[in-house]
Parts: sequence; C-alpha cells; structure tokens
Amino acid sequence: MRVAIVGATGAVGHELMQVLERSSLKLDELLLYASPRSAGKTLPFRGQDLTVQVTPEGTIDADVILASAGGSVSKALAHRWAQGGGVVIDNSSAFRYDEGVPLVVPEVNGPEALKHQGIIANPNCTTAIAVVAVAPIHRKYGVKRMIVSTYQATSGAGQKGMDELLEQTRVQLDGGQPTNAEFVHPIPFNVIPHIDVFQDNGYTKEEMKVAWETHKIIGDDRIRVSCTAVRIPTLRTHSEAITLELERPATPDEIRELLSAAPGVEVRDNPGEKLYPMPLTASGKYDVEVGRIRQSLVFDGGIDLFVAGDQLLKGAALNAVQIAEYLQEQGALKRRQTA
Amino acid sequence: MRVAIVGATGAVGHELMQVLERSSLKLDELLLYASPRSAGKTLPFRGQDLTVQVTPEGTIDADVILASAGGSVSKALAHRWAQGGGVVIDNSSAFRYDEGVPLVVPEVNGPEALKHQGIIANPNCTTAIAVVAVAPIHRKYGVKRMIVSTYQATSGAGQKGMDELLEQTRVQLDGGQPTNAEFVHPIPFNVIPHIDVFQDNGYTKEEMKVAWETHKIIGDDRIRVSCTAVRIPTLRTHSEAITLELERPATPDEIRELLSAAPGVEVRDNPGEKLYPMPLTASGKYDVEVGRIRQSLVFDGGIDLFVAGDQLLKGAALNAVQIAEYLQEQGALKRRQTA
Repeated sequence: MRVAIVGATGAVGHELMQVLERSSLKLDELLLYASPRSAGKTLPFRGQDLTVQVTPEGTIDADVILASAGGSVSKALAHRWAQGGGVVIDNSSAFRYDEGVPLVVPEVNGPEALKHQGIIANPNCTTAIAVVAVAPIHRKYGVKRMIVSTYQATSGAGQKGMDELLEQTRVQLDGGQPTNAEFVHPIPFNVIPHIDVFQDNGYTKEEMKVAWETHKIIGDDRIRVSCTAVRIPTLRTHSEAITLELERPATPDEIRELLSAAPGVEVRDNPGEKLYPMPLTASGKYDVEVGRIRQSLVFDGGIDLFVAGDQLLKGAALNAVQIAEYLQEQGALKRRQTA
Repeated sequence: MRVAIVGATGAVGHELMQVLERSSLKLDELLLYASPRSAGKTLPFRGQDLTVQVTPEGTIDADVILASAGGSVSKALAHRWAQGGGVVIDNSSAFRYDEGVPLVVPEVNGPEALKHQGIIANPNCTTAIAVVAVAPIHRKYGVKRMIVSTYQATSGAGQKGMDELLEQTRVQLDGGQPTNAEFVHPIPFNVIPHIDVFQDNGYTKEEMKVAWETHKIIGDDRIRVSCTAVRIPTLRTHSEAITLELERPATPDEIRELLSAAPGVEVRDNPGEKLYPMPLTASGKYDVEVGRIRQSLVFDGGIDLFVAGDQLLKGAALNAVQIAEYLQEQGALKRRQTA
C-alpha cells in the first residue's frame, strides 16, 4: 500500500511519520509532500531518507493521503488528491461539518469511516481527546450536559508554537521582554483564553468545535456542551476539566470500571499515589489519561473528571493513522472506483 | 495606629508591605515578625529600614495584626496575639470555618468583619477572586450552580513556588531534568491537578475551599459549587473559568453592565480588541479582571465567564489590608476591651 503525507515537515507531519513507523498498516511506500519552501528536504523513515516533494495540485497516487497542511490548502486541493481513488484523511477543519464527510474517532464511531466519499475528517484535538472518555459514559449513562475547560499546549499551534514558547521563555528568564508572533499575546508564564477566532455568540471557534464535533462524533446533538478553551505555557498534551450531568446516575467507581475497559483510555486515578492525568506523563502516550474521577457536587449522580491527551497523537497524527488502520481491518482500503 | 505583619519575609508579607505603603490606614508604626531564621533582617518601608523580629508567642501590641505565617503557627498563637485587643487578620485556613470568625471579602460581606471576636479570616485566594465577580451576580440573578476550573500560579505556594518554577524551567531549557520540592511533581511546562490534600470525596481541600468559602462569604449555602483546581506554570495571578446556572435568566450585556459597577472588578471583555483577563495584564492589579462573558450553552439564561486576579493581592495581601481599612472606616479599629 502507498501512503502519502501532505504537510510532512510540520509538527503533525513529524508525528505522523513516527506513528506510521509503529503502525500495522501494510505500508510499502511513503510519499512526503510539503510547501515549495520545504521541498527537497529529506526525512528519515524506516532507515531510509525520503525526499519531500512539492504538494501536488492534482491527483495523489496513493491509497491513503494523510493531510495536515492547513484548512485552506485542504479546502482547495483535497478533492483533487482523492481523484485517484485514494482516501484523504484530513486533519484540518475544512470538511468536518460537511454532510457526507465522516468525522471519526475510531474507538467511538469507526464504522462511520466506511461511508466516506473520498474524504474523512480528523477531529479537533481537544474534542478527540474528550470523546474517548465521554462517549463510553454517554452510551451507558446518557450525558445531558458537558462543561469543559481546557489547558491547551502550544504545539496546538504546531512546531512554531512550541519554538515560540521555548525561545520567549528564555528571553523572559534572561530579564527581557517576551514577544509574540504565533500567539495573540506573549505566552511565557501567561494564560490566553483565546484560541481560533471569535464567533458572534462570544465563544471562540475552538470552543464551538468542541460542541459541534462532540455532537457529530458521538452522533447525538441533544448533549448540551459548553467549553472555555485556554492556551497555557506547556509544550504538548491538552488537559481538560470536564463536568458531566447524566441521565442515569453513576458513581465514580462505576465510571472507573467502565473506562478501564474503554479503548484508547488509560485510567490514571490514584490520588494517594499522586497519580492523575498530567502533560508530564501523557505526552508521547497513545492512550488518553483519565483521572480525578469524582461525584459531581453540582449534578446529582453526575461526574467530574480530568483528562490529558497528547494532542499531536490522539488529537491529530495517531487518530488519523488509526482511521486508516480501521479501514484496512475492514477491507475498505482498496482504492475506490473513480469516475 | 500600630500594625504588625507576622510572616513579613514571605511572598504575601512582601505584598502586604507594598499594599500598606499605598493604604489609607492611619499607620504610625509597622512591626515586622518572622521565624527565628529570618529575624534580624531589615526590610525597607516608607524610606526606613525596619528590623524583622521573632514572632511573639504572646500578645502583640498592635491594633491590626496581619498574619501570614501558615496555618499551624496561626492555630497555635493567633488567639494570644489578639490578647491585647488588636484584631488578627489571618491569611491561613486555620480559622476560616470556625463559628464566630468572620470570613471577609469587603466588597461582598464587609459588615461581617464587625462581628469579630479578635480574629478575622482572609479567604482562600481562588475563592476571593471568584466571589468579587460572582456575588453581585448572585444578588441580582441568584446563582444555582457554579462550576469552576482554575489555572493557579506557582506563587500560590509562596516565593519558593515561584523560585522553583523559574529555576526548574531553566534546567529544562538547558536540557536537564527538572525536579520538584515545593510541588508534588515538576512544574515546568506541566499541569498538576492537585493542590492541597485530597479529601475522602476525591476532591482536594483547595477545591472544597472554593465551595465552603463561597457559601460562607456570600452567606448562602444553597449554591451548588464544584471546582477543579489545577496548578500551571505561571508566576502570579490565578485565572478561573466559571459557568453559572442562574435562577433568573441574564444576558451577557446585563452581566457586563452589572459588573462594570461592581467594586473590585475590572470588566475586560472586548474580544475584537483581544481584551480578556490574563495573568499578563492582571498581575500587580488590585481589581480582578472579568471577561469572556457569554451566554452559557448548557444552562438557559446562564452565564460563562473567565476571571484573572492577582492572588498575592486580592487573593491575599490586598484583601487583608482592605479588611483593616473597612474596620477603620467603620470606626471599629479602637482596640477592644480585653478580659
């Protein structure tokens, strides 16, 4: 099978290559694409140096095209890339809300992927991390309300985001005045409650994505979701404080037992041993850490919990590759007939 | 009037001296106390060098005793300090839940301070910052449920907390492995959902303080409060994402208007101009910044908002001095008769 990565030189592209090295995909050939600025670079993969080529404006001759080149590039080109019958798994928000484009977290709604018409959308990172924990709870107990506050890492803004945090932190430690280019304000030792653009209702698009995408992935738009999305000075892994009102009451023990058996989740919930989700332990990990599971004090029978997931992995690269793996398992990676 | 600071060499002690320099208190003499280790040091105040003395084990001969020496010291000695008729305004949690000890945020429940019997408790920093915004909303609209997620700075653990963040961040930037002494885990580029000790119900004491102290300060224990308290790698200012269910529906515009007239609050809520609460702008400020005011998506007529307040100031030193100023305004700072 031939796999292509569009946006191979970015932070998610880097993670895609790492994840593919360990993937069960029957991968014979890997094609790497990026913007003209990065073309000609070589990147190591399974002991070989692969040369990065300029992103095609037409068909990509591959079975799976993992795209992480930004919304505008995907919007303009993804349909063309798929013309050869390959499936584009797109990491941008360009197609997530389109009818006919599945939005997939394999542990939650894998079968939706089979309905694609050439493009499958990879969810927003914050949402992907939340739903692996929330979806099993919804199935068993029925989530009525979901209140999310996020602690989002700078790598949500790519490699440049991490670089800016590291460089500007050093500036501040050395007594200088930190500046900002990737973020709206200086990020060292700061907190910025502003990710993506503001909507008319006062929420940011990042916050609304958590509502919209939770509905589409879980397949139930009756869940009431409110989010506050906040950038903090960490490198990778998004953490989230989540409060759930449930239709049927649950105890923390029941939720711990349920999530212990849930795919993609590591229950890390032993306060006595100082074990709970943290970027320090969740970074680089495939599973989303879930802990601080406790009875909600505001909703009878409701649950409060805290999650931490590496948003470059489950929130991006890993989830994309898992979608491809799911299609392969289902025998759905034969190239489609094209017109 | 004579004022004493117990714990003068700590982070809050430092802020107390700064705040007293600008205070309206008719201060004639300032006494500084600390542990034997710090005794003999001199600290500048209004152009003079004041010598730090060892914290007395008996009466302190002052009208106001601002104590920030930790819970165990206060528990053992505060009643004795007050024996001369002075009022102890204590920053620890030692007396906050005791009957007969007022827990005071002057903008919210100033008159409670007049009922003291020698000791007034200064609230938990996270709670003090939240209630200046939430109390006016409760008065007008009735808060039924309050869900709080915190973004707490390292100075919540004092000067040593800030020092550890700065030092260990440099260690990590230089390629080393950060360690921890003040915090439960390394704090650079990390997030730790564990502040103060865990309770039997799975919440930390810090989280429960927000519930207990909100009830006592606002004077209404029917408000259902749930909190997730999280330490993040910032230096000062605690931020909080707050979701409110209200008895009577409110619009964001009504809340903005209400809070614009509320004492101790600066409404900073203009997303178009990138204005919202942040540690970068709230640090060093007396008022608590409130912004991101929007209609809740989970509660009809409810409100989501984001606050940022300097927890060394409104969360500690400033609030303590404001209590003393309130007592002075009310003519209640004459030393009480003692037995």
